[in-house]
Amino acid sequence: MISLGIDLGGTKILAAVVRDGQVIDREQVDTPQTGFEDVADTMAACARTVLGRGHEVTAVGIGSPGPLDYETGEVIFAPNIAGMVNAPIVRAVSERLGMQVSLENDANAAGYAEHLYGAAKGLGSSIYVTLSTGIGSGLIVGDTLIRGAHGQAGEIGHMTVLPGGPMGGDGHTGSLEAIAAGRSMARDASYVFGYDMETEDLFELARSGDRKALGIVDNAALFTGIGLANLVKILDPEAFVIGGGVARVGPFYLDRIEAACARYLVGYRMPRLLPAKLGYDAAVIGAAAVAARAERDRGARDHATDAAAERPDGRLS
Amino acid sequence: MISLGIDLGGTKILAAVVRDGQVIDREQVDTPQTGFEDVADTMAACARTVLGRGHEVTAVGIGSPGPLDYETGEVIFAPNIAGMVNAPIVRAVSERLGMQVSLENDANAAGYAEHLYGAAKGLGSSIYVTLSTGIGSGLIVGDTLIRGAHGQAGEIGHMTVLPGGPMGGDGHTGSLEAIAAGRSMARDASYVFGYDMETEDLFELARSGDRKALGIVDNAALFTGIGLANLVKILDPEAFVIGGGVARVGPFYLDRIEAACARYLVGYRMPRLLPAKLGYDAAVIGAAAVAARAERDRGARDHATDAAAERPDGRLS
Repeated sequence: MISLGIDLGGTKILAAVVRDGQVIDREQVDTPQTGFEDVADTMAACARTVLGRGHEVTAVGIGSPGPLDYETGEVIFAPNIAGMVNAPIVRAVSERLGMQVSLENDANAAGYAEHLYGAAKGLGSSIYVTLSTGIGSGLIVGDTLIRGAHGQAGEIGHMTVLPGGPMGGDGHTGSLEAIAAGRSMARDASYVFGYDMETEDLFELARSGDRKALGIVDNAALFTGIGLANLVKILDPEAFVIGGGVARVGPFYLDRIEAACARYLVGYRMPRLLPAKLGYDAAVIGAAAVAARAERDRGARDHATDAAAERPDGRLS
Repeated sequence: MISLGIDLGGTKILAAVVRDGQVIDREQVDTPQTGFEDVADTMAACARTVLGRGHEVTAVGIGSPGPLDYETGEVIFAPNIAGMVNAPIVRAVSERLGMQVSLENDANAAGYAEHLYGAAKGLGSSIYVTLSTGIGSGLIVGDTLIRGAHGQAGEIGHMTVLPGGPMGGDGHTGSLEAIAAGRSMARDASYVFGYDMETEDLFELARSGDRKALGIVDNAALFTGIGLANLVKILDPEAFVIGGGVARVGPFYLDRIEAACARYLVGYRMPRLLPAKLGYDAAVIGAAAVAARAERDRGARDHATDAAAERPDGRLS
């Protein structure tokens, strides 16, 4: 099945035609910072450009930063895009394109793509963890995304792992994100070295053997490992798929996380830690897959309704 | 549907005939501490006694302390019952009774019962939390129990919430259980007051206004609230159902937990905190429900196989 994914990011909007998890055509534009109507116009224009090249697509899926209201199809709040507060993105894009539109959180979408087509292909359950400026996740159990009762599931970066620890953006102390996200490592590095330091520079310094830089990296890896171990004790996935900018550092960082996780899993089976495979395309592929699934579900419902209508007792065959 | 539940506890074995979540007959005996064969004999004898009163039952479900191996039907380890190590309980009971036997972790079974028939009846998702000597849970999303890839899901008591905090039984510091379980509160009270104190005595002292006792209770409630808030951020359930001996203290303790949880959920929708309704029968009702469900699934599979056999192309209708 062919469907269109639209990945709404803080700097770029990517529209891609996807068949069986493969991007077969794409178009990318800058994200406007001039309000929601402009964002919706730009998303629709970007979609029309790629669709205008002759692809037969009936379902569209949007991957958006959250939190989202799945009932109303709204982005409740996207901090990196101006004007995205209670934004009815499903209705706006659907009206502009004249097509059915699905909505999914971007980390969920990326996790769904990695589960269906990427690093976790063929597994019964997986947790996609994105280590980046922040820390987020997508939870997939038995081919189903766990969104939660109010669309707030998977916010593992907000999990408290050290009450009294560093202050986080939500006014709590000691969340995983406040200790171990890219932004938090940069904060610690800037404090320790006395000048503004980016996460990439910190990792370079750590690789060169600098003990202070290694201390910061080890601390972040320790708490990330503790966070993953907590997820094992709660959800026991077959594998973690680790993605996001910080994860691209590779084994130098991921091996430290794995060792820390194992230390906190005495008596437990350790799941596999797999590097993400789909890179920056994961969210758009996942958004397209969510749209394709919604289309199939609609088809199945219509088919069931037709079949029921043909039977005198009205029951499904 | 009528099925039989057997709740294997550290001191008692309870067998109950259950119809639509209601116990209609029951039998209880002491748990032998003389090895696995005696446990299996006693469970089968207890089941036969209640079945001998003329109940038509075809499915049996066992609720057992974990961890369990669901593939082989074994209890990997049950610390409170002598000889229960890699114990093939499904095969042993099935052979003795000549019936199909299902196995479920006892906290999962209790959570399933509360979800189907008790405090969380009618909700789309719920997390059953047992606050007792230890702290455990059962996770239900969309009427499905989440067991995890290796049957180790739901062990929320082992979640690390304060690295460097009190030492737990698994050799890690700072698990929720090591801080806030009944046994941990008793440990802290005995230290503070200088003599062996039970959890019940601690709560009585706290109710009377003793500041030190209140300090211990408040600390346990704070960390339990943090643990529940973490579960909201990860799974976002519609409700928590709170059961177990410590929870029977009532609002004096549960209100403190709720207040602590809310403090750690800024920006999140707070799920409802519901006291468990089914009391000590929850696990046996849940075990019977798991058996009934397995029986239905077997029936559906057989039916599908029959239908496929009748079709020349072998495909399911």
